[in-house]
Amino acid sequence: MRAAVLRQGRMVVRDDVAEPVPGPGQVLVEVKACGICGSDLHFAQHGEDLLASTAQLEGVANQNDDVDLSRDIFMGHEFSAEILEAGPSTDTYAPGTLVTSVPVLISPQGMDMIVYSNTTLGGYAERMLLSAPLLLPVPNGLDAGPAALTEPMAVGLHAVNTSRIERNETALVIGCGPVGIAVIAALKLLGVEDIVASDFSPTRRRLAAAMGAHVTLDPAQDSPFHQCRPAVVFEAVGAPGIIDDILRRCPAGTRVVVAGVCMQPDTVHPLYAAVKQISVSFVFGYDPAEFASSLRAIAEGDIDVRPMITGSVPLDGMADAFDELATPDAHCKILVTP
Amino acid sequence: MRAAVLRQGRMVVRDDVAEPVPGPGQVLVEVKACGICGSDLHFAQHGEDLLASTAQLEGVANQNDDVDLSRDIFMGHEFSAEILEAGPSTDTYAPGTLVTSVPVLISPQGMDMIVYSNTTLGGYAERMLLSAPLLLPVPNGLDAGPAALTEPMAVGLHAVNTSRIERNETALVIGCGPVGIAVIAALKLLGVEDIVASDFSPTRRRLAAAMGAHVTLDPAQDSPFHQCRPAVVFEAVGAPGIIDDILRRCPAGTRVVVAGVCMQPDTVHPLYAAVKQISVSFVFGYDPAEFASSLRAIAEGDIDVRPMITGSVPLDGMADAFDELATPDAHCKILVTP
Repeated sequence: MRAAVLRQGRMVVRDDVAEPVPGPGQVLVEVKACGICGSDLHFAQHGEDLLASTAQLEGVANQNDDVDLSRDIFMGHEFSAEILEAGPSTDTYAPGTLVTSVPVLISPQGMDMIVYSNTTLGGYAERMLLSAPLLLPVPNGLDAGPAALTEPMAVGLHAVNTSRIERNETALVIGCGPVGIAVIAALKLLGVEDIVASDFSPTRRRLAAAMGAHVTLDPAQDSPFHQCRPAVVFEAVGAPGIIDDILRRCPAGTRVVVAGVCMQPDTVHPLYAAVKQISVSFVFGYDPAEFASSLRAIAEGDIDVRPMITGSVPLDGMADAFDELATPDAHCKILVTP
Repeated sequence: MRAAVLRQGRMVVRDDVAEPVPGPGQVLVEVKACGICGSDLHFAQHGEDLLASTAQLEGVANQNDDVDLSRDIFMGHEFSAEILEAGPSTDTYAPGTLVTSVPVLISPQGMDMIVYSNTTLGGYAERMLLSAPLLLPVPNGLDAGPAALTEPMAVGLHAVNTSRIERNETALVIGCGPVGIAVIAALKLLGVEDIVASDFSPTRRRLAAAMGAHVTLDPAQDSPFHQCRPAVVFEAVGAPGIIDDILRRCPAGTRVVVAGVCMQPDTVHPLYAAVKQISVSFVFGYDPAEFASSLRAIAEGDIDVRPMITGSVPLDGMADAFDELATPDAHCKILVTP
């Protein structure tokens, strides 16, 4: 079977990957579309930093402690797929049903995240395994491409839910990559009446406006905080220095939601945050109910994700797609269609 | 009139300070007791850093922009005082009434914080001005010493209110200086059933236990996070590195309340906070209702602040008191009795 794998920081296609065999409770599926996530690019570039940091982490199970960067890594966690066959004693939807799922594979050994793994296949493969209890059939005849955006849009929904923003409060979204765009779509879905989006890229600002931003700002012209007075700021850049700039410039009492994932150490001035009594909520992922809401919103047309899909490549095109996504101006979401 | 002032980083006593004259809405008071706050020590040591940082700050009025460190600085914001006389056309309590107030002086020019100033007198003086509308008479015959602790105890009350902690949740208080002790007292007042306090100093741990901590831990033995599983962590140290250590070790989903004020830049790993979806609320001060609640709790005996008062000095003793407070083991709160 064919799959694209991360090897020494580059995506390469293998045609000798062992055919996955579903166990009890598992389902073999054919991947129809899989989005390339910014976190996959980050992992390709900063995988060692990430593994070193998560190895230091206490208070949570380390999902990455058996990841070996010297061996091939399977990735791809934003997928839609058609059911091929169920494992032994497993009830599921009919073969041919288009489904999606939170990226978790349940096995007798436990729950494996479908994110970075030397062993668990992701969506950058012709076929993969999913967990029958977690499958969501894609409703309303929604195509496989938009269905694959269920996962990234759920990230935005979770960030907005965590913020507890009210419709009459001003939201400022800093960074209009896929995470920022998902936040904007979720704010629009909630009916927030003043959505301000900031990005250096004119292409991204146009996409932000198309997805629901009422005002778009170029931070190269002036700080967004000189042009609006947000109650909630969504940080969707994930680069060092951004959090401190927000703390320094935002109004007193701002609620900051950090949705970007900065994988390096970062410098902040706690005094800035203290004097202005700022709260900072770090968000990650979503819960299963938010994932299901995301699919429903896309399938019912409440969120139109089509403007976000800026490209589609076969497995062979992934290495080039990773390179193109490194320059953010051209693309938002590229789908892999194995 | 005599007052102790900060001059070149040291407290010195002057006897040539001009007698304050109350304007309309103001009241001349005789200071009976004024607590030495950790922030005064920080300011004496790191005043330039603080002014440089607050000068960078946007989104809030800079209370310090006219503070000149090359001139004498008046301080002292934790006071109780007796009314001497009211300004013109000013109704207030009878002369001799013991009062306290949030440390704000209202003048025709606006609201001046009574905290660090070249011009506005604080509680490290024989007499000072207060604002008639902000005065709270000290009830129940409470002595001037405990009444002066209204302000620092309000800081703890505000931190606990911000946390929205439930009584059955575990609280971990890191650092048992005056701020940490005020947090512990407020947690006890709320009826929180599992209050864990951590400090390197055995004297401070004993005080923490006296003020309401159910468990006290020495972090030199092992990380407090290896010995309890808090829902809410109160950071009451204010030194670089503490916030990142909390982010790294605390359980997933922890609410962190930062009550310590770190005046230097600090390094954090946003990834730690992201993976565990931690929220961080920075708190500062209190609102007038919390200040009034604090006075009431002390006057009604719901919070017994007497174990916190470890010393009392005249104005001439302030320089030595600042030195003694730099070594935290001996003292919690020293009162100045001008």
